[in-house]
Amino acid sequence: MTDGGSGGYRGAGLDLLSSHHLSVGDTVSVTTSDGELAGVIMPRYESASDNYLVIKLKSGYNTGIKTDRVKSISKLPGEKIKTSSTAKVPDEDKSLPRVALISTGGTIASKIDYRTGGVHAALSAAELYSSVPELANYARVDPEVLLSEYSENLKPEHWTLIAKKVAEKIESGDYNGIVVSHGTDTMHYTSAALSFALQNIPIPVVLVGAQRSSDRPSSDAAVNLLGATIFAARANVSGVFVAMHAGTSDDVVAVHVGTRVRKNHTSRRDAFESIDVTPAALVRNNEIEMQKESQTKLTARTNAKGMKLQPDFDSRVMLIKYYPGFDPGIIENAAKSGYKVIIFEGTGLGHVNKECFPAIQRAVETGVMVFMTSQCIWGRVSMKVYDTGRDLLSIGVVPLSDMISETATVKAMWALANVQSSKDFKDTMLENISNEISESIPVSD
Amino acid sequence: MTDGGSGGYRGAGLDLLSSHHLSVGDTVSVTTSDGELAGVIMPRYESASDNYLVIKLKSGYNTGIKTDRVKSISKLPGEKIKTSSTAKVPDEDKSLPRVALISTGGTIASKIDYRTGGVHAALSAAELYSSVPELANYARVDPEVLLSEYSENLKPEHWTLIAKKVAEKIESGDYNGIVVSHGTDTMHYTSAALSFALQNIPIPVVLVGAQRSSDRPSSDAAVNLLGATIFAARANVSGVFVAMHAGTSDDVVAVHVGTRVRKNHTSRRDAFESIDVTPAALVRNNEIEMQKESQTKLTARTNAKGMKLQPDFDSRVMLIKYYPGFDPGIIENAAKSGYKVIIFEGTGLGHVNKECFPAIQRAVETGVMVFMTSQCIWGRVSMKVYDTGRDLLSIGVVPLSDMISETATVKAMWALANVQSSKDFKDTMLENISNEISESIPVSD
Repeated sequence: MTDGGSGGYRGAGLDLLSSHHLSVGDTVSVTTSDGELAGVIMPRYESASDNYLVIKLKSGYNTGIKTDRVKSISKLPGEKIKTSSTAKVPDEDKSLPRVALISTGGTIASKIDYRTGGVHAALSAAELYSSVPELANYARVDPEVLLSEYSENLKPEHWTLIAKKVAEKIESGDYNGIVVSHGTDTMHYTSAALSFALQNIPIPVVLVGAQRSSDRPSSDAAVNLLGATIFAARANVSGVFVAMHAGTSDDVVAVHVGTRVRKNHTSRRDAFESIDVTPAALVRNNEIEMQKESQTKLTARTNAKGMKLQPDFDSRVMLIKYYPGFDPGIIENAAKSGYKVIIFEGTGLGHVNKECFPAIQRAVETGVMVFMTSQCIWGRVSMKVYDTGRDLLSIGVVPLSDMISETATVKAMWALANVQSSKDFKDTMLENISNEISESIPVSD
Repeated sequence: MTDGGSGGYRGAGLDLLSSHHLSVGDTVSVTTSDGELAGVIMPRYESASDNYLVIKLKSGYNTGIKTDRVKSISKLPGEKIKTSSTAKVPDEDKSLPRVALISTGGTIASKIDYRTGGVHAALSAAELYSSVPELANYARVDPEVLLSEYSENLKPEHWTLIAKKVAEKIESGDYNGIVVSHGTDTMHYTSAALSFALQNIPIPVVLVGAQRSSDRPSSDAAVNLLGATIFAARANVSGVFVAMHAGTSDDVVAVHVGTRVRKNHTSRRDAFESIDVTPAALVRNNEIEMQKESQTKLTARTNAKGMKLQPDFDSRVMLIKYYPGFDPGIIENAAKSGYKVIIFEGTGLGHVNKECFPAIQRAVETGVMVFMTSQCIWGRVSMKVYDTGRDLLSIGVVPLSDMISETATVKAMWALANVQSSKDFKDTMLENISNEISESIPVSD
């Protein structure tokens, strides 16, 4: 250790460690007014203030403890844990699967940024293992920084970049799986984009982020990264997935199919949910549990030769959420402004006010392709049941079954760049390419 | 009975009843290839085909049985149940609470239409009790037809009409509660609208609809209407609510606060959910269970003198859902087209691409008021945490806490018609008028 075991601590934190003859990697018991906890002293985060001690708990979570709240601290028996940059980089262990980690921004693990979920520009494998030492038990991880953006700033052009980078890693034949670290705001849009841009891929591609930055107690950064890496390295399936904290307990990560996942909470760790289907898998206690009841069709790891890379997107797609008082002029403007596709988020089974019909009809007549999804989020549009739906069908609106509106928007941008005729475009939108349309399951009463 | 007990049956249905000496109101046991069930023969629905028999099960649900599937049918002991227009109309029972039922379309109970949830134009109290005889145990219901529209066709002008009609019923002093039957597509928009248009009301106003029409097995029409009526008649709270089937069992209706409810499934009976809060109450086995843990503040039934009716709405509000590839030109167009307010559904904690900032700034400079909600549905926007949020705040975007985007859109339309200055407008949007902003609850991990 270059800093003599101080792990970047200074000020009050360093004083506390020094006075108790402790250093980073020691397992300690800490008593505060809240109680007692045990764990390993972790290196200080660059962004943390001086008067915090960071303890890695047995659950895998890091917690920050204010030094002035520490009533007593004592070393527990046991070997010093390797947590620093001297941690062994397991690159040499040829028995471990190899995983490429492509970062689209920020920092990871102890260096994960809540908002970007990405790796800072200078990240080395050594730093990665120092932050999440458990990774060394499961994979040889090669990190690479591709982008450095908050995910709300990512655009279709970035999806193209990411898709090409993933394809390059796949084509190298060097990797058992790929992890893409990503901010959580638009991670589900990107996972849908990669699901269409990268078809028939031979290995899993797993997007991962964090809802809580790792300098906060209850951060999900390390647990998510570990779960994503284990799934990418070892699951016997191919395709694009999102791995994020699952609902119930601290150590379960849910792996969602890339086209069927949505961020459903602004701040909870289990914000990401599969829509209308069960997640593809859970990673519990670092073991993969494929979910047999998932209604998605997954293919096993296969030979890469058939991979189809179509990384381009065309943004001339407008997603319109309908609401009472909605002005049909918005539809007219879309047609005039050069949009080629409108994706409606209608009400209920896929409806909009009948006053919109003339504007939709005119848009269709000028060549705009109009599709229907539901703002209900869950469930399937069904436009043959009632007048409004039938009228919309008759003027050319195409219902998209239970495709999530976000996925439908991304798919339309992708199809617009890759399919020529409008007939082929509609067929493509209705073709189930990557589980974006789920099997029709009887609705449970 | 004007039809001699045939209850509108004809053809195969009538033949079956005649040949077994059965008539409407008899309790019977029916055997089909699927098994055996027992219940009361109900009048035939006008819309049902001739070869169906309608049986009301003990659970309260009606089920349709194809006559050619009936292997045997036999009368069970017991008095004939009053199901027809001869059912006693309990108008004379002065001990029962009085409820006004305002219909906004279609048909109710045996005559409920799935899509409108409303009452057909000729509905009499007698017909109502013939469809849902249990109502007679709980309230004297006065039905009145106000509108006859699918709810996706309802506009802010309709909210005004409904609000005025509700106010008229309240001002009459005749009613313990009011039920508004409504199509489910936009019921949550209307409930939000009434929550702002009708403040400080002395009694409960309960919107109700049905996800399944009553000529289908597992219809929720009668159960929902009964639950709504019981709550309107007897709950010791005032305000605007939505009563719809709850998740777990057949006979539980959830009562949601009007500003905190959303239709979250296209077809399930339990499609309506409270967002970020617990429902205000459950009606289980026709008993009201107020939910103590609900984070909403409800007021008890009070004296009507303070009621504030502000029924007008102004539609110059645009709800914009952000997505990657979103063209800032949409914002420019909104400003040019005379919109006064933009409600964003941003990503995560309340973000849009930084490329939108100049267009938003120009819109704000020309007097458009811009607010932020989250497309995550659940959770609270928080724009002070990261650069993107802080930048948006600095150019004048106002975050709306955990207000649902649909509620925010309705509230803006209401405030635009009722508040003069833009300063007052923003204050009004941020004021918690009708539980549209929930108390800040620590996020559970």
